[in-house]
Amino acid sequence: VKGGTEETTTGVVRLRAMEKTGSLKYAIIAVNDAYTKYLFDNRYGTGQSTIDGIVRATNTLLAGRTFVVCGYGWCSRGIAMRAQGLGANVIVTEVQPLRGLEAVMNGLRVMPMSEAAAIGDIFVTATGDINVVRKEHMQKMKDGAIIANSGHFNVEISLKDLEELSKSKRALRPNLEEFTLRDGRRLYLLAEGRLVNLAAAEGHPSEVMDMSFANQALCAEHITKTEKMAPKVYSVPCGIDESVADLKLKAMGIKIDKLTPEQEKYLSTWEMGTT
Amino acid sequence: VKGGTEETTTGVVRLRAMEKTGSLKYAIIAVNDAYTKYLFDNRYGTGQSTIDGIVRATNTLLAGRTFVVCGYGWCSRGIAMRAQGLGANVIVTEVQPLRGLEAVMNGLRVMPMSEAAAIGDIFVTATGDINVVRKEHMQKMKDGAIIANSGHFNVEISLKDLEELSKSKRALRPNLEEFTLRDGRRLYLLAEGRLVNLAAAEGHPSEVMDMSFANQALCAEHITKTEKMAPKVYSVPCGIDESVADLKLKAMGIKIDKLTPEQEKYLSTWEMGTT
Amino acid sequence: VKGGTEETTTGVVRLRAMEKTGSLKYAIIAVNDAYTKYLFDNRYGTGQSTIDGIVRATNTLLAGRTFVVCGYGWCSRGIAMRAQGLGANVIVTEVQPLRGLEAVMNGLRVMPMSEAAAIGDIFVTATGDINVVRKEHMQKMKDGAIIANSGHFNVEISLKDLEELSKSKRALRPNLEEFTLRDGRRLYLLAEGRLVNLAAAEGHPSEVMDMSFANQALCAEHITKTEKMAPKVYSVPCGIDESVADLKLKAMGIKIDKLTPEQEKYLSTWEMGTT
Amino acid sequence: VKGGTEETTTGVVRLRAMEKTGSLKYAIIAVNDAYTKYLFDNRYGTGQSTIDGIVRATNTLLAGRTFVVCGYGWCSRGIAMRAQGLGANVIVTEVQPLRGLEAVMNGLRVMPMSEAAAIGDIFVTATGDINVVRKEHMQKMKDGAIIANSGHFNVEISLKDLEELSKSKRALRPNLEEFTLRDGRRLYLLAEGRLVNLAAAEGHPSEVMDMSFANQALCAEHITKTEKMAPKVYSVPCGIDESVADLKLKAMGIKIDKLTPEQEKYLSTWEMGTT
Repeated sequence: VKGGTEETTTGVVRLRAMEKTGSLKYAIIAVNDAYTKYLFDNRYGTGQSTIDGIVRATNTLLAGRTFVVCGYGWCSRGIAMRAQGLGANVIVTEVQPLRGLEAVMNGLRVMPMSEAAAIGDIFVTATGDINVVRKEHMQKMKDGAIIANSGHFNVEISLKDLEELSKSKRALRPNLEEFTLRDGRRLYLLAEGRLVNLAAAEGHPSEVMDMSFANQALCAEHITKTEKMAPKVYSVPCGIDESVADLKLKAMGIKIDKLTPEQEKYLSTWEMGTT
Repeated sequence: VKGGTEETTTGVVRLRAMEKTGSLKYAIIAVNDAYTKYLFDNRYGTGQSTIDGIVRATNTLLAGRTFVVCGYGWCSRGIAMRAQGLGANVIVTEVQPLRGLEAVMNGLRVMPMSEAAAIGDIFVTATGDINVVRKEHMQKMKDGAIIANSGHFNVEISLKDLEELSKSKRALRPNLEEFTLRDGRRLYLLAEGRLVNLAAAEGHPSEVMDMSFANQALCAEHITKTEKMAPKVYSVPCGIDESVADLKLKAMGIKIDKLTPEQEKYLSTWEMGTT
Repeated sequence: VKGGTEETTTGVVRLRAMEKTGSLKYAIIAVNDAYTKYLFDNRYGTGQSTIDGIVRATNTLLAGRTFVVCGYGWCSRGIAMRAQGLGANVIVTEVQPLRGLEAVMNGLRVMPMSEAAAIGDIFVTATGDINVVRKEHMQKMKDGAIIANSGHFNVEISLKDLEELSKSKRALRPNLEEFTLRDGRRLYLLAEGRLVNLAAAEGHPSEVMDMSFANQALCAEHITKTEKMAPKVYSVPCGIDESVADLKLKAMGIKIDKLTPEQEKYLSTWEMGTT
Repeated sequence: VKGGTEETTTGVVRLRAMEKTGSLKYAIIAVNDAYTKYLFDNRYGTGQSTIDGIVRATNTLLAGRTFVVCGYGWCSRGIAMRAQGLGANVIVTEVQPLRGLEAVMNGLRVMPMSEAAAIGDIFVTATGDINVVRKEHMQKMKDGAIIANSGHFNVEISLKDLEELSKSKRALRPNLEEFTLRDGRRLYLLAEGRLVNLAAAEGHPSEVMDMSFANQALCAEHITKTEKMAPKVYSVPCGIDESVADLKLKAMGIKIDKLTPEQEKYLSTWEMGTT
């Protein structure tokens, strides 16, 4: 074994940990961190497929609904973008000021989850953290609120809290469970809090997976052609990333421009034009 | 029987024809023509559910695709709006200049189907007419093009033409059929050209059907309370239409404003303020 | 004088009043009511030019601001559309349930002005009524709120109330007046409450006025060619309206489809295909 | 002098060059590269003000027009976003595949300038390079095309080529010059090819400049409080960047969430939950 490639966030985190403790035995290229992976797969893939999962599980109309997205990373902003594209009024919750500010500037409302809980019709978590939707929020939710996760295992929504607040539950359709709280309100949990785009829909369309896989293939080729790579976690070589974008455009039949020699020179020597 | 109500476009058309020929035996209220029916059901209901049908049948990514909508009536503009909201680049084809112009002004490209055929990735018909996608268009389509109908029976796409151009076909998934043309290109037909939102998805969400049904109920009540109605096709009484909108807002927990007496007076006597 | 044409809403209202009282001496065609007038001029013309007026008067950033539009008629929905397009978070106030519901379904928040007053950063009225923004609202507004009118004379914002609440005012720039209320808050009135798109910007671009003027010209021609028209207010003949749309598309270099004879026949005889 | 801060891209480039040649005499913090600078100032500031400049110079309607943006960096994507928000149909030209692909995925058309030239109504450059619009493109443009620059001095549009192709020119309004080409077509140049948002409008609104200036002030404070800084170009300390975002949110009255201790712990120890 000369080396390997890793597609997922969690995998990369673990391999980095192994590198630190010296237990990594061969080189790894972190395909997950390529622009042509996370800018597309996470935003457009997760965005569309999460909405798809919610609609398949509930057949609910998004137009006119208050749609709360927990997080504003690449996945969550994909979800926010698509919910808005389907006519929902989107609220974002965040813990990082910079991301919160970007959401505001993009015309979305931003507020703490404790406030969003009371006004949302549909909630989706995609933060990578635990208990993002928990008892204190569920207690404020409207009768009929829908809760889904698209982020990380089944830990973002506190299932324990939901169980504790409920006096009964029943399955209404595949991936749609109704929890009746002690006070009579009903909350609807999708896909048992697991990734709704995988559980209730079909995951990412092949049109974004192809770029991730192209990265995999080209990185594998890169490993075989490289003399010797120390047992570390490597970034995707920049040339491979750009080349995947280039191949994708070609596959879509889209042409772009090329710098003229004069333009190329201008970029490298900033003295021109500024005198 | 004192009277009836009719929900569908086709039904209303036939009942009007019966009225003309004198064969209508009792009063009919054309629920289909209420604002709270067609502005919502046709636009938001058909819009979302058509996209839903396409995604369920193909799991294709809409972002970055050229999406051709045939027609720009209420249904088709709902579809265009949602395709754009999912990141597609939308082209509209129309036969009415006014509708075509509105599509242009809404930032969409408008062109004849003969031109759109060659550049579209996904085609959806919703015109209410026959053979909107036919041989001359199929001959120009790109390998891999997806064709669906959301408008009217299964006559908007010429199945006969598609069969004639093809040397073979096979079912790939439910509602997804691959036609291989004699020249090797493959076209993908969804749901046998039937309404893709009904065949491949679940039709309109209950959140828009409720308004149509409220119209039905209130119109039925109106019929029973009205002394005598001649055997004609009637419009939904304006008060019922507004009252359905009002009830829907209340059900969604949304409050609106009320004219002050002064404002009410101002509206009725335009002389004020213009002196 | 054989007849005349009338471009404005107010003009049409008055001429209709004259018709009723029998004081109208010659035929009038109400150009204002043509689709190619109000669908375009009111929505796209007023939409863009109102935003333009606000930006010229204040140079304020719209992204991230809470933008309250009073009304959801053709003008006001144009304004809402453009404010959203520039990154604002839009709230609509309405008195008609149907319009309010449409705004909701389009992803906007709808609420009474008494609630919107406290959270808006920018307010624009376009209702055609008086005192839409008045004392009770101004008392709740945030320090720094901007108030403009794009609807109707200078009566939609109660200038009297604003004066009464203020202890001082000063002009900051052309069309921008700062009112300091007794409690210290400052409200910013644009263009003295007159139509901000005319006062602070340049009114509608020629690209929408051309359609209104084309209607005028073709209606004038229609009057001269018509044998005798009674002294009434007439609608724009349907053919003229469509022909203006057709001419506009041609001028923009945009082609549309034409029904095939088979399609034309199908539309006129609904029996086909439904058997 | 202990150190300085630099706000502009060009300034940073030159200071880096000075650092390389050893001619930099004191420490510089590159404020331009802070997230709270370029993510906001370049995108939302340049976006809105560029549109503003074009509208003030021409009073043209954007709805329904084909709007070509040269480049898809932070400034140019701001411009693309706003042009689309005003109803234009946007085409992007790029030389980097990754950026081109992002534009495609965002629903925009991407093509070489040689193709876009023939179909655009309005052209805006924001690439940072020279002669982006040049003779070969001008020769293809439609009669009436509008050309503006928002990117970089006055070198992005080749003024020399435009002069050479023209038989006459005249000023129509401030910042609007009509060039009549030898073949009779007329091209409209805004603001002599200088930055249209500065020349024809008022530059960035204070609502985005405030963040840049806050960075300046906090970086200056950082320099005075730091013991000794070598004469290099430094990044804005990450804490300052986040703190500016935080202050901006506070100034806008927007609250965000805070991680619970449990959530904080979870993020630092990825082992939980993945077992």
